[in-house]
Amino acid sequence: MKEIVIGFLGCGNVGGGVWNLLDGFKKEIAHRNHVAIRVKKVLVRDVSKARTCAVPAELLTTEVDEVVGDPEISIVVEFMGGEQPATEYMLRALKAGKTVVTANKVAVALNWHRLQAAAQEHNAGLYYEASVCGAIPIIAALQHSLQANRIGHMMGIINGTTNYILSRMYERGESYEAVLEDAKRLGLAEPNPASDVEGYDAAYKLSIMASLAFHARIPFKKVYVEGITKLTAMDIACGKEMGYVLKLLAVAKREEDTIQVRVHPTFLPETHPLSQVNGSFNAVYLHGHACQEMMLQGRGAGDMPTASAVVSDILRAATCETHEHPTFANTADADASLTFDDNWDCSYFLRLTAEDRPGVLEKIAGWLAKENVSIATMMQKGRMEHGRVPLIIVTHAAPEKAMQKAISAFDSQVCVVESMIRVEQ
Amino acid sequence: MKEIVIGFLGCGNVGGGVWNLLDGFKKEIAHRNHVAIRVKKVLVRDVSKARTCAVPAELLTTEVDEVVGDPEISIVVEFMGGEQPATEYMLRALKAGKTVVTANKVAVALNWHRLQAAAQEHNAGLYYEASVCGAIPIIAALQHSLQANRIGHMMGIINGTTNYILSRMYERGESYEAVLEDAKRLGLAEPNPASDVEGYDAAYKLSIMASLAFHARIPFKKVYVEGITKLTAMDIACGKEMGYVLKLLAVAKREEDTIQVRVHPTFLPETHPLSQVNGSFNAVYLHGHACQEMMLQGRGAGDMPTASAVVSDILRAATCETHEHPTFANTADADASLTFDDNWDCSYFLRLTAEDRPGVLEKIAGWLAKENVSIATMMQKGRMEHGRVPLIIVTHAAPEKAMQKAISAFDSQVCVVESMIRVEQ
Repeated sequence: MKEIVIGFLGCGNVGGGVWNLLDGFKKEIAHRNHVAIRVKKVLVRDVSKARTCAVPAELLTTEVDEVVGDPEISIVVEFMGGEQPATEYMLRALKAGKTVVTANKVAVALNWHRLQAAAQEHNAGLYYEASVCGAIPIIAALQHSLQANRIGHMMGIINGTTNYILSRMYERGESYEAVLEDAKRLGLAEPNPASDVEGYDAAYKLSIMASLAFHARIPFKKVYVEGITKLTAMDIACGKEMGYVLKLLAVAKREEDTIQVRVHPTFLPETHPLSQVNGSFNAVYLHGHACQEMMLQGRGAGDMPTASAVVSDILRAATCETHEHPTFANTADADASLTFDDNWDCSYFLRLTAEDRPGVLEKIAGWLAKENVSIATMMQKGRMEHGRVPLIIVTHAAPEKAMQKAISAFDSQVCVVESMIRVEQ
Repeated sequence: MKEIVIGFLGCGNVGGGVWNLLDGFKKEIAHRNHVAIRVKKVLVRDVSKARTCAVPAELLTTEVDEVVGDPEISIVVEFMGGEQPATEYMLRALKAGKTVVTANKVAVALNWHRLQAAAQEHNAGLYYEASVCGAIPIIAALQHSLQANRIGHMMGIINGTTNYILSRMYERGESYEAVLEDAKRLGLAEPNPASDVEGYDAAYKLSIMASLAFHARIPFKKVYVEGITKLTAMDIACGKEMGYVLKLLAVAKREEDTIQVRVHPTFLPETHPLSQVNGSFNAVYLHGHACQEMMLQGRGAGDMPTASAVVSDILRAATCETHEHPTFANTADADASLTFDDNWDCSYFLRLTAEDRPGVLEKIAGWLAKENVSIATMMQKGRMEHGRVPLIIVTHAAPEKAMQKAISAFDSQVCVVESMIRVEQ
């Protein structure tokens, strides 16, 4: 039986999961894939640190050359995370003709073109299913199973931490701060949760997914990003009353050569399939011209779900004859032939605090009408102190910039915009 | 650019969809896959029949040899449906070294081993993503993306016609017969709907899916099949009141070398992800030891969704260097090393009409207890004429055979079993 010798870059939680999965699955791999996978070297920062897997001490090294420079190693698996030094190490492996399997969304999103160019030049493979949504086979679906489709739009819940927080706020009416603290305690949020709650984690993933969906490189810096840190229990409660569920949504839409890519809190009708996706689950909903609606849902993070994708990629790389690479309409990091549209159309949910006197509604409607924004629904929620009332407005679809302009013209003596949240259907 | 010459066996709705998809997607295929796909011959029964696609008359033939015997044709795409003559034609193509792409669940489920043996012997490919759940990439997921998993169980809504019927019965309280008539009128049920409503369509698909999930050939004849024809609006209403949704579920479970495969009406808790899958949508929910829970949902039928899977398979076959074939634990149609368990454990929903007098409940509980079946919930629904009451019982998990035996001992003078429906969690 053919032996495939591999090396790890990093051995944290995901690396440990991959080690354990490979170790416990040897018999099946031999039977089904007719190969044996042997891990020869594991790059770590500190060889004395306790690990979640029983990797023998003699495999550990702090020298990257022992992995990327070993001629016997044909596949390098990267779990270091972050842009550098991971990208440099992967480039060195690829340039040595080694195939790279990575779970690193940041490195792929930021340096995909360099990584792919090195892979193609040196006849190596580049596999990154694990970089987006853990076990969910969204990369394989976009690259292969749905390849006969023109994908028009895609919306995803692709960050488990924020979905856990928003689900609990929705279900129990808790505050953002209280749930975040609890999520940290439960290990569902990092001690420094910025990348998740500010939306950057989702934006990296969206950059990768949208590039494959639209067959055009979508640079990370083109993704509009807005996190969930300013959301209140009141916003969620008001939306719920109107039949909406709040999600941090990654949205990608394409019309001809115009593309929108954005990550922001979004109200969805409670009947939308994504509205049912709760807790730390991830899901991607998309529409293709042939497949029509499709949704893939599962565990987007965690050691074993991520290891499921990594090991599947390792087995694929180990057994295929030639490595495939996607073809993009653009080859550089950005491209003049594509237009990135930051003036998308959607509906808007506005929560206002307004003066409680005749004529106020007329004024607000007037400020909106001036920018051609029309009101779909309006709801007044009781009364506050000092003669002010909370007011909820949901608009019909309007361009983002018109909406922003309309709001900036609101007279704060008459009404204050407490929140503006986008609504998708 | 490399030209790939293909032939069609059949040109009904799906064949027409594939023709149209290939035709409208030429530019993308050239750009992304670096090939041109040309359809050279199309086998039809009647060359003069009107078609849903603009296939030129000179391509049509009634002679199968013009497709499977043409040395220029390298891929044969089959849409005839049914076991024969489709299987014979596909075998002839494979034996001539041609790759086969098929949407035919019956032929694959019944003759997979013969088709795969012919393909392997003649270095040809056999592709069948379209045979199960239309556009949903469940075959690719099981074969590739989830290959590092030991899949413990899988439950699917894999027949759109019955899901449409049951969804409407649930939502509007309509009768089975009324909705079936409407579904026929809308083209969502065949004029002769037996294969769908009796569960056979789902059983063919389950045989294929379970074979890939468990890496062991699961013969169609081992699948327990029960259709939806005896379900009443009353069953669905009573289940709904208790928080259950009724689905025609395809269930496959594996524990060591013991396998259950069954298709039958099933109550699911309304909070289960599959309970949200309504109308003609399909979905497969599964659990793997690494990926954990996953659900793939989409259009399981229809010309274009099926064409999405067919064309993806054609492109894959056209661009890969070697064709892969799954390895099964067993090579023949059935196997001694596997045990097929028809005495599965699940909960049961019983709808009874019982005498309205003291001691009746005690008797029923006694008949169940005699077979070690214990009651989880009981609900009495008002009163009927003639001193009889409708009674709903949901049991704890119990073996199928114990349940059947308990029911057979019920004294019909005391109570009549109107329905017995399995409950999964």
